[in-house]
Amino acid sequence: MSEIQITLPDGSVRNYNKGITAHEIALSISEGLARNIIAAKVNGTVIETNRPIETDAHLQLLKWDDKEGKSTFWHSSAHLLAEALEALYPGVKFGIGPAIENGFYYDIDLGDHKFSSEDFAKLEAKMLELAKQEQVFKRQAISKAEAIQYFKEKNDPYKLELLEDLEDGNITFYQQGNFVDLCRGPHLPHTGHIKAVKLLNLAGAYWRGDEKNKQLTRIYGITFPKKSELDAHLTMLEEAKKRDHRLLGKELEIFAFDDDIGPGLPLWLPKGAAIIELLENFAKSTEKAAGYERVKSPHIAKESLYLKSGHLPYYKDSMFPPMELDGIQYYLKAMNCPHHHKIFAATPKSYKDLPVRYAEYGTCYRYEKTGELFGLMRVRSLQMNDAHIYCTKAQFEAEFKAVNALYLKYFKVFGIDKYVMRFSKHDPKKLGQKYINAPELWKETEDMVRNVLVNANIPFVEVEDEAAFYGPKIDIQIWSAIGREFTLATNQVDFAQAERFDLYFINEKSEKERPLIIHRAPLSTHERFIGFLLEHYAGKFPLWLNPQQVSLLPISDKYQEYSEKVLNILKKHDIRALIDDRSEKTGKKIRDAEMKKVPLMLILGEKEQTDNSVTVRKQGGEDLGSMSIEAFVQLVEAEIKQQLN
Amino acid sequence: MSEIQITLPDGSVRNYNKGITAHEIALSISEGLARNIIAAKVNGTVIETNRPIETDAHLQLLKWDDKEGKSTFWHSSAHLLAEALEALYPGVKFGIGPAIENGFYYDIDLGDHKFSSEDFAKLEAKMLELAKQEQVFKRQAISKAEAIQYFKEKNDPYKLELLEDLEDGNITFYQQGNFVDLCRGPHLPHTGHIKAVKLLNLAGAYWRGDEKNKQLTRIYGITFPKKSELDAHLTMLEEAKKRDHRLLGKELEIFAFDDDIGPGLPLWLPKGAAIIELLENFAKSTEKAAGYERVKSPHIAKESLYLKSGHLPYYKDSMFPPMELDGIQYYLKAMNCPHHHKIFAATPKSYKDLPVRYAEYGTCYRYEKTGELFGLMRVRSLQMNDAHIYCTKAQFEAEFKAVNALYLKYFKVFGIDKYVMRFSKHDPKKLGQKYINAPELWKETEDMVRNVLVNANIPFVEVEDEAAFYGPKIDIQIWSAIGREFTLATNQVDFAQAERFDLYFINEKSEKERPLIIHRAPLSTHERFIGFLLEHYAGKFPLWLNPQQVSLLPISDKYQEYSEKVLNILKKHDIRALIDDRSEKTGKKIRDAEMKKVPLMLILGEKEQTDNSVTVRKQGGEDLGSMSIEAFVQLVEAEIKQQLN
Repeated sequence: MSEIQITLPDGSVRNYNKGITAHEIALSISEGLARNIIAAKVNGTVIETNRPIETDAHLQLLKWDDKEGKSTFWHSSAHLLAEALEALYPGVKFGIGPAIENGFYYDIDLGDHKFSSEDFAKLEAKMLELAKQEQVFKRQAISKAEAIQYFKEKNDPYKLELLEDLEDGNITFYQQGNFVDLCRGPHLPHTGHIKAVKLLNLAGAYWRGDEKNKQLTRIYGITFPKKSELDAHLTMLEEAKKRDHRLLGKELEIFAFDDDIGPGLPLWLPKGAAIIELLENFAKSTEKAAGYERVKSPHIAKESLYLKSGHLPYYKDSMFPPMELDGIQYYLKAMNCPHHHKIFAATPKSYKDLPVRYAEYGTCYRYEKTGELFGLMRVRSLQMNDAHIYCTKAQFEAEFKAVNALYLKYFKVFGIDKYVMRFSKHDPKKLGQKYINAPELWKETEDMVRNVLVNANIPFVEVEDEAAFYGPKIDIQIWSAIGREFTLATNQVDFAQAERFDLYFINEKSEKERPLIIHRAPLSTHERFIGFLLEHYAGKFPLWLNPQQVSLLPISDKYQEYSEKVLNILKKHDIRALIDDRSEKTGKKIRDAEMKKVPLMLILGEKEQTDNSVTVRKQGGEDLGSMSIEAFVQLVEAEIKQQLN
Repeated sequence: MSEIQITLPDGSVRNYNKGITAHEIALSISEGLARNIIAAKVNGTVIETNRPIETDAHLQLLKWDDKEGKSTFWHSSAHLLAEALEALYPGVKFGIGPAIENGFYYDIDLGDHKFSSEDFAKLEAKMLELAKQEQVFKRQAISKAEAIQYFKEKNDPYKLELLEDLEDGNITFYQQGNFVDLCRGPHLPHTGHIKAVKLLNLAGAYWRGDEKNKQLTRIYGITFPKKSELDAHLTMLEEAKKRDHRLLGKELEIFAFDDDIGPGLPLWLPKGAAIIELLENFAKSTEKAAGYERVKSPHIAKESLYLKSGHLPYYKDSMFPPMELDGIQYYLKAMNCPHHHKIFAATPKSYKDLPVRYAEYGTCYRYEKTGELFGLMRVRSLQMNDAHIYCTKAQFEAEFKAVNALYLKYFKVFGIDKYVMRFSKHDPKKLGQKYINAPELWKETEDMVRNVLVNANIPFVEVEDEAAFYGPKIDIQIWSAIGREFTLATNQVDFAQAERFDLYFINEKSEKERPLIIHRAPLSTHERFIGFLLEHYAGKFPLWLNPQQVSLLPISDKYQEYSEKVLNILKKHDIRALIDDRSEKTGKKIRDAEMKKVPLMLILGEKEQTDNSVTVRKQGGEDLGSMSIEAFVQLVEAEIKQQLN
């Protein structure tokens, strides 16, 4: 029996007999590990833990914590849902049932059966019952003819339609218990891994997304390997509902949408515009200190610009349609890069000028389908915290390091404790096809990127074959205070655009040389970031970032004049304050200030007027007692300076 | 002989015999006045001073200083040019010859004659010779048939084509000397008023602006009633050439155009973007103190928004063409108003919330023909210092006054000493047609506008029948340091949009009430204003507005470290400084800093390093001697604070 070499992620190599399974390899390491592995990644492809490995391979044992582990888990859960459905609703027909970002769904045709979310409990119970049976997911290669025969007999038109597009010799079935599905896999070792089930909601979904087709019933669900994880997830969802940025945005008068403006195009009300301005000022001063220069570019450009950059025709579907003017097509910009490249090219550059760092809060426009728009998270207008750094190869590592330091600085300021950088690399086999053919540059920059991440002790995962065409990139994932994941913009290295735009600097040898380019946007877009912050802070923007920092609450009309005096002092110190001069009781004024999430309230009455003082109440109820106006100003200024969360 | 009543601009009324001429009326006042009048405005129409006045009339005697006086002067000068051309180039044929903003032109067909700008002197001499003859401009009503007969005999196809469009009974000829022209007038009393002549340049111009027609020769010229005025004008033109904002913009690296971006769409290089940011910060803090709130709106909107505002279809030619998305037409915004109205409407308003003042540096896009684009002065992307004020009728006067005060404040800061506000009113006869039918609102607001202007002692002229459809407006004309005139944005009152957008607030009686709206943009667009400032300052932006305030000039490499120490101190005080660390002689470094218009230069050598001091040289050469770094910082900070010009 011949041996194969298995390389593990830590670089260690072990020899095994050919045909060994991932499960057996895990067992050879520890029993606990074997219990926890869900699937295996063999030379970049995810397979079941019971599939034999026949050649030398890089092997990663996937657990629940791995993205691809979760995805396998939820894909198997969709099959479990289908099995339960078939048991309870005989004759139900099945469309597709994939894993999604958080859970899975299955599109089904229930025929004459009645079904509503009230039936979820029964279905969940059935799923758990079947899960407990520890049914193994059995894989079977099958000929196209036999597959068609099977679904003809079962009378499932959807699977038959899916089969039409599949190539004979490439078709597999998966069976657990009595349920058989047309499926490429991979799947869990057995259903027993699924310990907690929650069906979330029902929706209508056109077969194959085409509104000319029949509307199927889509059942969304989520499953976990532990009951406690499901509970935590449901608590998080509950909390996320309360912190829904769309509701908070409306309640706090941050932004609005309007039918005459258009979907995905938010209008920023004064408070929203104030937050934007505060974020921009913070970014501008931070970036100024980091040596960035600011530039400004128009929101449109000729077609030729995007042909040059390569965005046209490839990216066309994500751009707004062109406007034809004097026989020339103009496009709304979907990204700022080509404009910045033109600014770089507008004046001659020598190596002494490098690195050049151009920053702009440039608004870009991208086409998203109406159905995919979602509050501030998926929009059509994007105000981006954009910058491009043009540097020499020698400067690259220091520049990339500085960019990462900027990310970390920002995360700290906004109280983002959990983040992961996803380092996407090229695949050497695809050089010249999917990736620009510059093997040395790839190796060099990927090594530099990895070094920066390792040395800065930044949590990161390496992913093969997910780089951009023009260089390695980093996707930044962050988690909000309630544990929801958000993807911020990427941080990318670019070898290609300098060539396309004929960008160069004169090097020390008086020759033309191409700069390397770094694309970066640590604060993402205002839209996505403010949407994130609304959830993260539950609308309670910290003092430094709150459009209204102080509410002055005179306890009666008599103290209006004194309130104005206090207001003027605060204004002189650039403290954002308003007087609540309504003829309401103080209790009501406090409740309203709480509703508006104002961080500080000043109660102003006889005593305060006599003493030239203010009585300070913090949001949430903490009483800071009485203090002089000056002491209050100092308190506020100190907290603003520290940018406390 | 019956009498008529003549009302003069000061309101005085005089009785004269019917048929009296403006010249005779002027003579009845003073001989000097009679000598200086060029034309007369009788009930709103400009006529010759020798035309009989047959009815009671409002009369304004027009002099050279009046806009319409100049226009008449230059129109007559075009005829004089034609007379001279006909004398020197027999058989020349004439297109049209109007007065323009600065002078006049005539489009001519020279047939086989050769002509170049080298012939200007000869032609100018001939014009002056004819002018001295004090030829009277004789007006003659003529039938269409006779007019056609005349130009047929003269063999002038252009005049014959013009005649085709004219109505019989409405045609007049004007003759001076031997030259007869088809013309509506009005004209000077005689050619003797023209004392100074300068032909400026030659251009090709298609007949009737249609490139399918023959190209004629256009001769541009200007004339004056005094030689000294021509000399001053030529000096100003010379200076304006040196201060050409397009050249300075390139030299100082303020902005650039790029073929792939598109005509009229400037890219702002770091120094330009810095000036923009400084202007915006200044405007934002000034406007914040004046009670404005900032908002942010997208650069596009659905067609329905502009149909609602009334910009479509009327303004369509000035807008970019639509983009069609999901079957809906989207337009780039050509103005911010409709977006702001939507923001006003997004949250309920009570009378206690008013006045609401929404400000935004919103970038608008307007279509200008390629041939009409000119540097930053005529562009297609406009970053506007825009704001809309929503107020009650009772608040209007105070608000309008505050807006005017803001204009004056800005003018003072930028050293704009000469300005005129052109107050455009409605015509009561055109209510319900050209003007919204609200006679009381017109009277009320026009009176209030006039009061504000009179009380604030602001120079202004009143113009009938030039208001906007929806309310009176003020156009602001300013003059640059070398005396060139620029028109800034307008300041408008608006009764109509609140109705169209169903904007209201709840008044004290708990009823819905429409607000009045003021549109204002004192700093115009960044494009036009920075273009103006480049000429106004000859590129020498004052310290507070200069993207680079200080140049540090180490006299050798030895003082690089000390220079960096000084630089860091300046940076800590937010002073914008750069080190010139090239291995060049100090003299060369000073010359380059002068070229870059840097206001302050610090010479740093042995003495300075030992003393911890700097030697300060001002732009232009003034030597401020040595001082401590701290003293220099204080000097700079004091000058910035004062915003000296």
